[in-house]
Amino acid sequence: VKKIDVVRKILADRFQQSPVYQTAEAFAPTNIALCKYWGKRDTELNLPLTSSLSVSLAHKGALTRLTVNDLACDVISLNNQKIKLSDIFSQKLIEFLNLFRAETAPKFNINIDSNIPIAAGLASSACGFAVLVRVLDKLYDWQLSLTQQSILARLGSGSACRSLWDGFVEWEMGVASDGMDSHGQALPAKWPELSVGLHVIAATPKKLSSRLAMQQTVLTSQLYQAWPQQVKMDLANLKTAISEKDFLTLGKTAENNALAMHATMLSAWPPIQYSLPETHASMDKVWQLRREGLNVFFTQDAGPNLKLLFLAQDLKAVTEQFSNIEVVMPFDSK
Amino acid sequence: VKKIDVVRKILADRFQQSPVYQTAEAFAPTNIALCKYWGKRDTELNLPLTSSLSVSLAHKGALTRLTVNDLACDVISLNNQKIKLSDIFSQKLIEFLNLFRAETAPKFNINIDSNIPIAAGLASSACGFAVLVRVLDKLYDWQLSLTQQSILARLGSGSACRSLWDGFVEWEMGVASDGMDSHGQALPAKWPELSVGLHVIAATPKKLSSRLAMQQTVLTSQLYQAWPQQVKMDLANLKTAISEKDFLTLGKTAENNALAMHATMLSAWPPIQYSLPETHASMDKVWQLRREGLNVFFTQDAGPNLKLLFLAQDLKAVTEQFSNIEVVMPFDSK
Repeated sequence: VKKIDVVRKILADRFQQSPVYQTAEAFAPTNIALCKYWGKRDTELNLPLTSSLSVSLAHKGALTRLTVNDLACDVISLNNQKIKLSDIFSQKLIEFLNLFRAETAPKFNINIDSNIPIAAGLASSACGFAVLVRVLDKLYDWQLSLTQQSILARLGSGSACRSLWDGFVEWEMGVASDGMDSHGQALPAKWPELSVGLHVIAATPKKLSSRLAMQQTVLTSQLYQAWPQQVKMDLANLKTAISEKDFLTLGKTAENNALAMHATMLSAWPPIQYSLPETHASMDKVWQLRREGLNVFFTQDAGPNLKLLFLAQDLKAVTEQFSNIEVVMPFDSK
Repeated sequence: VKKIDVVRKILADRFQQSPVYQTAEAFAPTNIALCKYWGKRDTELNLPLTSSLSVSLAHKGALTRLTVNDLACDVISLNNQKIKLSDIFSQKLIEFLNLFRAETAPKFNINIDSNIPIAAGLASSACGFAVLVRVLDKLYDWQLSLTQQSILARLGSGSACRSLWDGFVEWEMGVASDGMDSHGQALPAKWPELSVGLHVIAATPKKLSSRLAMQQTVLTSQLYQAWPQQVKMDLANLKTAISEKDFLTLGKTAENNALAMHATMLSAWPPIQYSLPETHASMDKVWQLRREGLNVFFTQDAGPNLKLLFLAQDLKAVTEQFSNIEVVMPFDSK
């Protein structure tokens, strides 16, 4: 099964040669996985070996505007900076857009405003592809359901399928070979006190893409064999913790899940290490604070940065210790 | 099954109330596991969940002299410094000695000369208990086989059962509940070019004993489920590498095995991290040197220090990069 087959199946008679509108704009939040997506059973369609669970980061994400231009090529700008079309960033984006338009169809001016660092393990590609699907849906007036949008976003980047909703989102891995049952779905729970502290240690692009790291881990890490079972338990514990607002279980499970993911990378060959010395120092600090009674946990994606997890009541204590973090409250309606 | 039962079984009618000699002295080398011992199926007898494989470090180890004294208690000195009997170090040592003597039997002056840092992940307890068995064997003139000595040494510390021999030693896990089939055995291969660089990053005692770390990992790490299978493959690969003098396979397997062991700790709860920021920096350096074509690998035990693995031909290149390492050639007959 190819990406284009999935696109044809979903768009079917909604497919249109040209956009209905001249311009459209949309936003999608980035999401932080509390139980990670790590390992694919299908690299073409980004079908995962396990389910995963995330929380979307409210106003942190990407605002993207597509405008039909009359040029022979797309023009891409990110945070008001023009990006070369030869860039890997541009290539991935255009390759994705081309799934939805004929070769002769109009090209776009693509303006992306992202308030998170790109490719530093802050899920920039997650919100990037989710917002593209959203804005295409508007531009072509497809009126796709969020589930359909989620399936399309997944074709760009696996975790993007979780960025179509606010709050907690579960990505059920599904079993179908075309991935029509592999998409995000919102969990109803709200948790206004839940706080995420973005602790950026290095905002430079990572040396190894998470796509390659994942592949190398699945292929070479013996410990990865135990990962699906870990995810199964962690997902069950997280869902219970969310429904019971049991923060200690949520924090512990999310941190343990992230460390286990990095453990599978450490045991891959060649070994993969996204953490910098400062990352390890910050982990030590979190562990020390916990021993002193502060309920703060972390999660880490395929990059050196940490995302601290805590409750609003501990905001002051946490920011006193980590003065540079940016705090996001995923369920804050402001 | 208790330790004392194993001692009775092995000593049987060799058991003597008092030493045959007034003094005896012996040496045992420390050993570095290329495939780690990590996880027990019996904590009383130190019976492992997997087999393991080590190389002994020739002249690096402990020289111990026992002398019968006429006091009511043992007197312990380490590197000419008297150690308090209330010390955990003394308590473990005396507890072990008491397995071999009646309560009213003579006490000893115990002089230990160790040329490795104590409790910094350099297997000080491995050579410590191996040498104690050796010197007791002399003092009481038991004339035990090395296999019998290995079983007794294991009662003090699991990895001690590998420190009765020079060169490569395999510890076969065994299946018997009394552990009579769980002991070291020498592999015949010699590898004169093999070099170990002791890269001491911190020689301070570790915060968490490997005994507790192991237990916590077995109990809480989901990834540990895959460890026995990893060991099985690594042991087979190491034995082939040793018999074929295939250094790249030896180095890769040893490093991957050590990283996988630390990965199981990282995924335990609470997480266990023996590495210091300098440890991570040194790992990065090894990886970088390898990318530049230098065949250097590392292994790491339950401490922040690394042991570099390389061949004699690369001695100069390695010591130029790591100027503070102490180089040991396990098969050097000097």
